[in-house]
Amino acid sequence: METSRVDHKEALKLNADTVINLLVQFIKDETHNVGCSKGVIGVSGGVDSALTASLTAKGLGKKNTLAVIMPHRTSDPQSIKDGELVVRELGIPSETVDISPMVDAYCEKHKVVDNVRRGNVMARMRMIVLYDISAREKALVIGTSNKTELMLGYGTQHGDIACAINPIGDLYKTQVWQIAGALGVPQPVVDKKPTADLWKGQTDEGELGFTYRDVDQLLFQMVDERRSDEELVQLGFSLEFIRKVRELLRKNQFKRRPPVIAKVSYRTLNVDFRYVRDWGI
Amino acid sequence: METSRVDHKEALKLNADTVINLLVQFIKDETHNVGCSKGVIGVSGGVDSALTASLTAKGLGKKNTLAVIMPHRTSDPQSIKDGELVVRELGIPSETVDISPMVDAYCEKHKVVDNVRRGNVMARMRMIVLYDISAREKALVIGTSNKTELMLGYGTQHGDIACAINPIGDLYKTQVWQIAGALGVPQPVVDKKPTADLWKGQTDEGELGFTYRDVDQLLFQMVDERRSDEELVQLGFSLEFIRKVRELLRKNQFKRRPPVIAKVSYRTLNVDFRYVRDWGI
Repeated sequence: METSRVDHKEALKLNADTVINLLVQFIKDETHNVGCSKGVIGVSGGVDSALTASLTAKGLGKKNTLAVIMPHRTSDPQSIKDGELVVRELGIPSETVDISPMVDAYCEKHKVVDNVRRGNVMARMRMIVLYDISAREKALVIGTSNKTELMLGYGTQHGDIACAINPIGDLYKTQVWQIAGALGVPQPVVDKKPTADLWKGQTDEGELGFTYRDVDQLLFQMVDERRSDEELVQLGFSLEFIRKVRELLRKNQFKRRPPVIAKVSYRTLNVDFRYVRDWGI
Repeated sequence: METSRVDHKEALKLNADTVINLLVQFIKDETHNVGCSKGVIGVSGGVDSALTASLTAKGLGKKNTLAVIMPHRTSDPQSIKDGELVVRELGIPSETVDISPMVDAYCEKHKVVDNVRRGNVMARMRMIVLYDISAREKALVIGTSNKTELMLGYGTQHGDIACAINPIGDLYKTQVWQIAGALGVPQPVVDKKPTADLWKGQTDEGELGFTYRDVDQLLFQMVDERRSDEELVQLGFSLEFIRKVRELLRKNQFKRRPPVIAKVSYRTLNVDFRYVRDWGI
């Protein structure tokens, strides 16, 4: 297999205009198809939710795009400021809901001190707020998880991963950066270090143990190009890195699928009972 | 089409021993396959969670089956008593977590008074508690939604529907009653009126507008036997009832599926990137 280094480093570049048009149309179609006209987005101050909010504002209109900022008392104040910058630049309505009382009512009372468990509680409390506001507004929750996170399972099931539709779930993080830049997302938001901001000093890349630039190259070759380990090694990826990423892919598969149901009848949910989203009556 | 009334009323009867063995084995296999040995179940005092707890205790052993009772201050005290009865009869460990402070930290503070919205918040708070305890215990959340609820969308997405595996998701409610009876679930729990107990006086059948006995017959003929409206009318179901149930099936499809992701690459999550649960590395 002959693939030059230059080719494989260029592989993630997208035609920004085409992709933006496609994603804007996706949001519009999927929202209107289910009889809604509004979208609700949890705006964290990071680039993923900034891009999602920007695409939604284009698809549904500014007044139909509601940003919800959901700080916890342990959140970095800069996250809130960045979220407010995104809202201001887009000119969309926003609400702020402090999740501290909800989180503390469980974590303090039941002495949950583990960072990962606390982080999951926070992500799920935000889901509750977003879904409740979406019910109030008869709106859809628009998802903000990118393809890198979804593939690696770097997100909370029934938390930040939860949504009705996700316009950016097929974009790797490096592609999110490219499209966000092209769409005019504020530069400080595009340039900041990615973090889930679930505890002090947390950065995605520190926690994962590799950079998005590296893992996106690997995921693209592994998932989209379906290359074998041997081919990936030839492209310059270490076997250790390949194995680590394959293991993350495999063991987080459950986050991307509905629960497994025991089959006892002729037609079982998600086994042989499955309709497309828009099936006729 | 000639199907006698007797045949169609008998259609939901199961061979209890066969089904019980199959479901017990399912719980054992699916739990051990992912490297776990414990299950966590939200025990509400209703028959679905009682059956699930009973099957799990058989599959994983009593000491590996943790019941979590999660009352809200507005819950019917009888629900808690029935949950405790289930735990006592099975001889399994249990914990009680009062979700009132968590729910109130959102609903009271943000003046959520609508019953359905409050009910969804409660169901999702219980999900948070169950998933957190499952992380602490390195256990799986074992689901308690039956096929009738899942088909009709009578449950909360990311709430009571959320689980890792679901042993009873292919049993209609009337089949849950049959299997629970055969398995020795306490008779008062089997016989009580089904209710989500999310607000005072709520009953499933009152809210749905039809009985489980009727809708299960219809769903079986509609979903499992794939009968047309004409055939269903010939079986004695009214066109109004048929249309109502078809509409519930259709409009709640989103609760049974992962979010829709906009496709921009060669391989998109849940479109053309999909591995079976147990794919090799």
